[in-house]
Amino acid sequence: MNKDSLLITGIGNSRNVSRYCFGKGSITQLSEILNSRRSSSENWAVFLIDEYFDRHSEPLGVLPVESTDRVIHIRTDVEPSTQFIDSLVCDISVSHKMLPVAVIGIGGGITLDVAKATSNLLTNGGRAEEYQGWDLVKRPGIYKIGIPTISGTGAEATRTCVITNEKTGVKLGMNSDHTVFDQLILDPDLTASVPRNQYFFTGMDAWIHCVEALSGSYRNPVGDAFSAQTITLCRKVFSDNEMMSEESREKLMVASYLGGCAIATTYVGVVHPFSAGLSVVLGLHHCVANCITMMAMELYYPDEHREFMGFVENQDVPIPEGVCSQLSDSQFEALYQATIIHEKPLTNALGEQYRDVLDRSRVRQIFEKM
Amino acid sequence: MNKDSLLITGIGNSRNVSRYCFGKGSITQLSEILNSRRSSSENWAVFLIDEYFDRHSEPLGVLPVESTDRVIHIRTDVEPSTQFIDSLVCDISVSHKMLPVAVIGIGGGITLDVAKATSNLLTNGGRAEEYQGWDLVKRPGIYKIGIPTISGTGAEATRTCVITNEKTGVKLGMNSDHTVFDQLILDPDLTASVPRNQYFFTGMDAWIHCVEALSGSYRNPVGDAFSAQTITLCRKVFSDNEMMSEESREKLMVASYLGGCAIATTYVGVVHPFSAGLSVVLGLHHCVANCITMMAMELYYPDEHREFMGFVENQDVPIPEGVCSQLSDSQFEALYQATIIHEKPLTNALGEQYRDVLDRSRVRQIFEKM
Repeated sequence: MNKDSLLITGIGNSRNVSRYCFGKGSITQLSEILNSRRSSSENWAVFLIDEYFDRHSEPLGVLPVESTDRVIHIRTDVEPSTQFIDSLVCDISVSHKMLPVAVIGIGGGITLDVAKATSNLLTNGGRAEEYQGWDLVKRPGIYKIGIPTISGTGAEATRTCVITNEKTGVKLGMNSDHTVFDQLILDPDLTASVPRNQYFFTGMDAWIHCVEALSGSYRNPVGDAFSAQTITLCRKVFSDNEMMSEESREKLMVASYLGGCAIATTYVGVVHPFSAGLSVVLGLHHCVANCITMMAMELYYPDEHREFMGFVENQDVPIPEGVCSQLSDSQFEALYQATIIHEKPLTNALGEQYRDVLDRSRVRQIFEKM
Repeated sequence: MNKDSLLITGIGNSRNVSRYCFGKGSITQLSEILNSRRSSSENWAVFLIDEYFDRHSEPLGVLPVESTDRVIHIRTDVEPSTQFIDSLVCDISVSHKMLPVAVIGIGGGITLDVAKATSNLLTNGGRAEEYQGWDLVKRPGIYKIGIPTISGTGAEATRTCVITNEKTGVKLGMNSDHTVFDQLILDPDLTASVPRNQYFFTGMDAWIHCVEALSGSYRNPVGDAFSAQTITLCRKVFSDNEMMSEESREKLMVASYLGGCAIATTYVGVVHPFSAGLSVVLGLHHCVANCITMMAMELYYPDEHREFMGFVENQDVPIPEGVCSQLSDSQFEALYQATIIHEKPLTNALGEQYRDVLDRSRVRQIFEKM
């Protein structure tokens, strides 16, 4: 297949998040935003909140929850499955006669993705697996409000929500303009209580995506501009002695949003396919898997690898080592298959003959470094 | 008045353009975008096109104009008045039984602003002057498509459209979320035929706005990020030997869009008030007035002034000189009044005591340099 035809699929029409509030304490805006949609007392809203806040609710303050609303805490130890989304939607649907006026996701990438998927399913009907793919969602979902509590994944700005079908093993998003949030509240106060390591791993997700995009052969000026600014902001944050100072957390929250905006018009490169291998075969979470992979990327991204090692040293964050040291041949084969399947990113990074460059033994060598 | 209370008016909720296409030849997407809104043959659209293209239609190619559509060319020698908008809206309203399905603005800042205002008036009724101000537009306008043919004003991304009431002299925008475009088509091919000087003056509008924003005391991290990336892109374009190469025109189109996104959350500084004086008293167009002002801004923006002079020299663009050399005392007084009235930008740049720093004689001295 020709590289251009693989990577350039026509001029895309990018959908933006409709509205965003940014600033310390902006979560207090939620009340006004919700009230403008509650036209009668029968209206109700669904709050999907990262389970962390079930035990640590202080950062969220007093949420504007009415007696008819539902508050559901979302598990984040496992990534969301289509089966989980289906049961969540069923639970919400049967609890009231009417559909809710809003779905509010408060949390990290997992919770935001669950909120997007739930909102779409509530109005479109059917099961989550029927919408995994591109542009399969036919109707606008319930009004979606996203409130990220950690920065880096960009889930707040993208048109996808990644879910895994546990039966078939298919891990694929609902890529649709309808998946985009109607409203974001970007409040940097909410990231103050994130554990340092997790803050680093997740922040690096934005940086790594943009590094891959700007090193690729498929480029466009809008994506490049968003990526460049994301990298500039991440560099400031992770070169700083205080990556979690108020100023740094503000910058990283902006970087995450802009990095998410970049995703619409860019492709990743070598890091994400290897990282996906680690997630699929070894069950490692996306952001830490990215960092583990980045440690072994000296060959493909020498300058970026050096900068990354500087961030790690500067922030004194331990990246897990030896995760592939005890694997069997069949596990290495599974890692190879789970990596090499990512045709578009690998073509973007290495050209259409990427399978020649990245053969079994090379892929295994790279994993053996991790 | 306290500076904070003047400049910080609560956490804003920023509205994004809903969708954008970017790329060479993307104007051909207009057909598909319009077709998705034409549900029956009775539906019709209004094309508002910069009068320049009446005589030079090649860059636009074959527009998807149906027999029931209206094509109206917009004068750009004078800035739009509320009276002009009213008569345009009346003309469009009486021409069909139904409202149009889309208003398409194709041109520079003036044409885009006319399209925004027309779209709002068609659904909201009344006269343009009734909507000059903040959040006075109550209903969504007709679906708005913006296709800029010159880069720099940021009109494609903002929530305002600047119009002047000729009777009262009030020059004020319809600042409203409903003023934001639903769809942009950003096609850098369309700026290839812009005269060099105009290309420079208009491109500088984006750069100057962001320079002012980043030098001000009122700041926020989202606005700063958009401004910084706009400046980076403008710097590349105007430091390059080929400011109108394909690559440079692409970059400047992105800079204009991002610069427009910055406007939502930033304030300008000293340049725009002086430039407004030149426009109001001497009738100079906004973008050239900005450049004339920038030539006299060594005191307030020494580094930026030096960089600007470098751009001017590098691109060999003549900035009009001596525009204030023959003015009367009463004209200087009018200039002073038209400058000093801009309380928010001047407070942002110079502090709340700005009238002490910028007294009559200082303002006159600065104008005398122009």
